[in-house]
Amino acid sequence: MGQVFLDITMSLDGFVAGPNVGVANPLGEGGKRLHDWLFLGAADASGVDRRVAEELFTGTGAFVMGRRMFDVGIGEWGDDGAFGVPVFVLTHRAGAPVVKGPTTFHFVTGGIANAVGLAAEAAGEGTVGLVGGAEADRQALAAGLVDELRVHVATFLLGAGTRLFEGGGWGHVELERTRVVESPFATHLRYRVVR
Amino acid sequence: MGQVFLDITMSLDGFVAGPNVGVANPLGEGGKRLHDWLFLGAADASGVDRRVAEELFTGTGAFVMGRRMFDVGIGEWGDDGAFGVPVFVLTHRAGAPVVKGPTTFHFVTGGIANAVGLAAEAAGEGTVGLVGGAEADRQALAAGLVDELRVHVATFLLGAGTRLFEGGGWGHVELERTRVVESPFATHLRYRVVR
Repeated sequence: MGQVFLDITMSLDGFVAGPNVGVANPLGEGGKRLHDWLFLGAADASGVDRRVAEELFTGTGAFVMGRRMFDVGIGEWGDDGAFGVPVFVLTHRAGAPVVKGPTTFHFVTGGIANAVGLAAEAAGEGTVGLVGGAEADRQALAAGLVDELRVHVATFLLGAGTRLFEGGGWGHVELERTRVVESPFATHLRYRVVR
Repeated sequence: MGQVFLDITMSLDGFVAGPNVGVANPLGEGGKRLHDWLFLGAADASGVDRRVAEELFTGTGAFVMGRRMFDVGIGEWGDDGAFGVPVFVLTHRAGAPVVKGPTTFHFVTGGIANAVGLAAEAAGEGTVGLVGGAEADRQALAAGLVDELRVHVATFLLGAGTRLFEGGGWGHVELERTRVVESPFATHLRYRVVR
């Protein structure tokens, strides 16, 4: 089974979205700035942000996300669904798959381990990418399903919002930092989970 | 007036101490590992952790800390008081200064701006270092008194405890990352506060 990575952007004060996330404001108040590295940084084709942005897809055979992320994101992702491989959406409401060009969104009601398992099966030799939101990511981390953390630390304090690391449950996790890449917009950190 | 820096070590999940901080356990349960970079990393005289550890004192003319940090730390800091320059302790209880060799601890009841002001006066051309705990640091940040953040991100998830960035109050703060230094134990980040 391929490796499972968790890919998340947070402000230096730990927020992955600002307050009042909604369809009109998918990253909450002030949260759009979290993705400056993706939209401003990665616009420079020769820059490190572009390279890091592309890595989200390189070798990734399937993605897992939470229902809320799907709900607020699907309008933004365009006709091709942005991901290009199967996406497994963790939800309490069953539903028929949503097909957007090469991207099919499957709804999974069996819990995070089930979602990651189905994603791993679909991914084959490829990796599985956990791409949020915070609750789904946290559940995966708490269940010991994550092999690698890719944390993009945006270069500002957001002040308020949703955290990835909130409420506990993941406990003490040993890490080995495997890479640091710097851009003006973010510090891109990679860690291997040590078991 | 010299620059004011805030120097803090936190786990990747944002904790600056584990649960149940006390005299017997100054960094809380599991929190001692936060300082592995200081005690294991800096033991190597040629290593980057040693260099970063020494920077806490280089050019620093005075320190500011919270009362709780003083209470739990003073037994650990030995006969010379560890800091070697005046330390201003933010407290609600006035008291006579505590002299430990070259280090004098002054108790300040006039609030964080007063403590930083007195420290700046004592520091002259030197910088002022805010060294915790979280509450004092947060108050300084919220009051706009901090010019530089020095954040040492320890290479593990602590899972629970006290955060620096908890409860809000500091709001949106623009930063410019000025340096990244990597050791196996921590990623040492420096940011300038952009006003």
